[in-house]
Amino acid sequence: MTSTPTFTAPDAAFVEDFRVMSQFGATENGGVDRQAATAADGEQRRWLTGLLEARGFTVKFDRAGNQWGLFEAVSGAPFVVVGSHMDSQPTAGRYDGAFGVLAAAHAAFRLVEKWAGGAASGKPKFNIAVVNWFNEEGSRFKPSMMGSSVYTGKLALETALNTTDTQGITVREALDGIGCRGDYDGPAASYCAEIHIEQGPSMEHDGITIGLVQSSWAANKYEFVVHGEQAHTGSTVIADRKDALLGAAMLVVAARELADRFPGVLHTSVGELTVYPNSPVVVPSRVNLLLDLRSADESVLAEADALLHQRIPAIERAANISVERNHSHSWPVTPYQTEGVELAAKVAADLGLSSKQVMTLAGHDSINMKDLVPTVMLFVPSVDGISHNEHEYTTDADIVAGLAMLTEVVNRLCNGVLED
Amino acid sequence: MTSTPTFTAPDAAFVEDFRVMSQFGATENGGVDRQAATAADGEQRRWLTGLLEARGFTVKFDRAGNQWGLFEAVSGAPFVVVGSHMDSQPTAGRYDGAFGVLAAAHAAFRLVEKWAGGAASGKPKFNIAVVNWFNEEGSRFKPSMMGSSVYTGKLALETALNTTDTQGITVREALDGIGCRGDYDGPAASYCAEIHIEQGPSMEHDGITIGLVQSSWAANKYEFVVHGEQAHTGSTVIADRKDALLGAAMLVVAARELADRFPGVLHTSVGELTVYPNSPVVVPSRVNLLLDLRSADESVLAEADALLHQRIPAIERAANISVERNHSHSWPVTPYQTEGVELAAKVAADLGLSSKQVMTLAGHDSINMKDLVPTVMLFVPSVDGISHNEHEYTTDADIVAGLAMLTEVVNRLCNGVLED
Repeated sequence: MTSTPTFTAPDAAFVEDFRVMSQFGATENGGVDRQAATAADGEQRRWLTGLLEARGFTVKFDRAGNQWGLFEAVSGAPFVVVGSHMDSQPTAGRYDGAFGVLAAAHAAFRLVEKWAGGAASGKPKFNIAVVNWFNEEGSRFKPSMMGSSVYTGKLALETALNTTDTQGITVREALDGIGCRGDYDGPAASYCAEIHIEQGPSMEHDGITIGLVQSSWAANKYEFVVHGEQAHTGSTVIADRKDALLGAAMLVVAARELADRFPGVLHTSVGELTVYPNSPVVVPSRVNLLLDLRSADESVLAEADALLHQRIPAIERAANISVERNHSHSWPVTPYQTEGVELAAKVAADLGLSSKQVMTLAGHDSINMKDLVPTVMLFVPSVDGISHNEHEYTTDADIVAGLAMLTEVVNRLCNGVLED
Repeated sequence: MTSTPTFTAPDAAFVEDFRVMSQFGATENGGVDRQAATAADGEQRRWLTGLLEARGFTVKFDRAGNQWGLFEAVSGAPFVVVGSHMDSQPTAGRYDGAFGVLAAAHAAFRLVEKWAGGAASGKPKFNIAVVNWFNEEGSRFKPSMMGSSVYTGKLALETALNTTDTQGITVREALDGIGCRGDYDGPAASYCAEIHIEQGPSMEHDGITIGLVQSSWAANKYEFVVHGEQAHTGSTVIADRKDALLGAAMLVVAARELADRFPGVLHTSVGELTVYPNSPVVVPSRVNLLLDLRSADESVLAEADALLHQRIPAIERAANISVERNHSHSWPVTPYQTEGVELAAKVAADLGLSSKQVMTLAGHDSINMKDLVPTVMLFVPSVDGISHNEHEYTTDADIVAGLAMLTEVVNRLCNGVLED
């Protein structure tokens, strides 16, 4: 995890900034805890403001808490938006979206420096906007990808601002608390680029440095509420119990059984499950849980979804409870623009970096952005595929290669390479 | 639920005090929420202090937060301790332990009034102490029966005071917050009596007014910690997952399967289960859960326990996790003193109240007290056996009959009926 001494000065500066950045919300085990609009998130945002302003960027917060670093090389021209998110899961890794935001900032610094070189370097057609999207993770406030959803018109601003965390604190209050709710509407975008770690083992396995993301997996996400009835765990006879936790446990097991039925092509999970009243001697009356099904194959997803819903009545009978489907959120397999994938492949070849097309199983802000403007999504490898874990790791050589890749993609986008 | 107009004035006063008492921490659905050392618990304790002091009782709080109402009829003599607990589960019923504390207070009032009648009524051999035990429920602070465990020497005072709730608040701080941590050591006890609702349907089913509790069910209680590994729910392949929640769900299902294997004679439950980090896109790395096995038959309990522990390695393999048994707490079938059961049977017959011997499946403070002094435990019926639920209900006629029963049992204990 030490920097190799062969890095150029700008690359070494990037690695050093990454080290400094990883101190915000640092955990004892080498990870970070920077949930959206917490103190650690706020401190890191102020640090990013300083970094951007020192290079001549204008920093603005929009109404949904997205942080923008703007540089106008061509007065009045629209922007190439480049960035990711700095918020994290609890006890998460240092890379995730934070690497993407810092790489975006350094890519922009390099381009602005080049443009300052004068006529010889050519003037770009588009301006550049570095973005740190608000609340991509969705751990404190749901849904995930909140800031980019508001920017792209998929989520109403008021709905986002009125969302509460488990303590009843609204997004509005939390953003005000860290001084990050602005009155900006965000820049006019023409293109978008994002770089992220892969969060899976395939690129490392194949020895590939750059992933050219060509589409995202389809997903069906459900919030189920299991309704039982509160009773004494000691004295209530089993036949009379309506145990919401038993029903919920059966759903968790059923989700895994589905994944086992479609090995390798279906991912299922229950990441969040909350029991009420959650007391040692009370049969739970209510459990809320979030259950996801994901696949690259929409027909597999549809079949698995149907099997899950067929299973629910049997669980209701077995546990003497009722299952309510409270909320759902689905998306199909969605491609990134082909011209963006082709551009990225050409840049990688020109830079001598190995690349391959990949799909993303995880959600990213660029999935929202690609529905607004042509968007290039890039991956660098994750050692052992570890993600959302304090031991998440990408080598310095790979983050430096990723920065070079992102810089050149954004350079060409700013120069209008996709204009024809 | 209306008082019948045939009650005597003292009985009507008791029913009215019960109504007033049920307003502390009242919930919209007719229940109460008075977890230990919360504001509602504190307010109710101050109200009880006022009630006791108005009748000439001296009220003291001991070092573990137990509230004592003392009346010395015979200077220097030891005490008959009578009471229960006023704390509740979240969204619990109005009866539970609160009925037992109020009945204890009113029984004591009646005896003190009788003793004040002079020589004709005879002077008792023992004094009387009404007790409101601290934190019987164990929902906010674990373990349950905390106050009586300290009083009976089963739990160290410092251990109890240093126990924290989920917010990190200690028992010491919480008791200080409601002004209920004293420097009293508690009275010297010679006998104990407690009355409680049955929390099950058997007495109502048989048409019995008074339950003579002759023993408690045996129980094995475990805290299991399921250890997995945090990972991204979308991108991590199923084979690589170490999903702590899947392992926990399998334990919940396995517990119920055990109960189904021993129908009617084994009660199993998981009432509390906490997921970490509990975020929608993170495979849980840790789940803590409390799993109980209870039976009136110790051989059934031992067999079920062995089956549970045999099952764990298979769950560890299937979910790719490890299960740690962090804490356990067991008790055998333990009898109340035979002489106490016989005394209660005689009192019921003398008062013309129907009675039968019952076992208690739930824990009670008297289970601790019976290991210190001869203890009489009484039940009144629960309509539909509902307990730890806002719809818990016992008729006014039954609580009034229970009060008469408790008064006469305590009267005879104070008179030394068990001295020979």
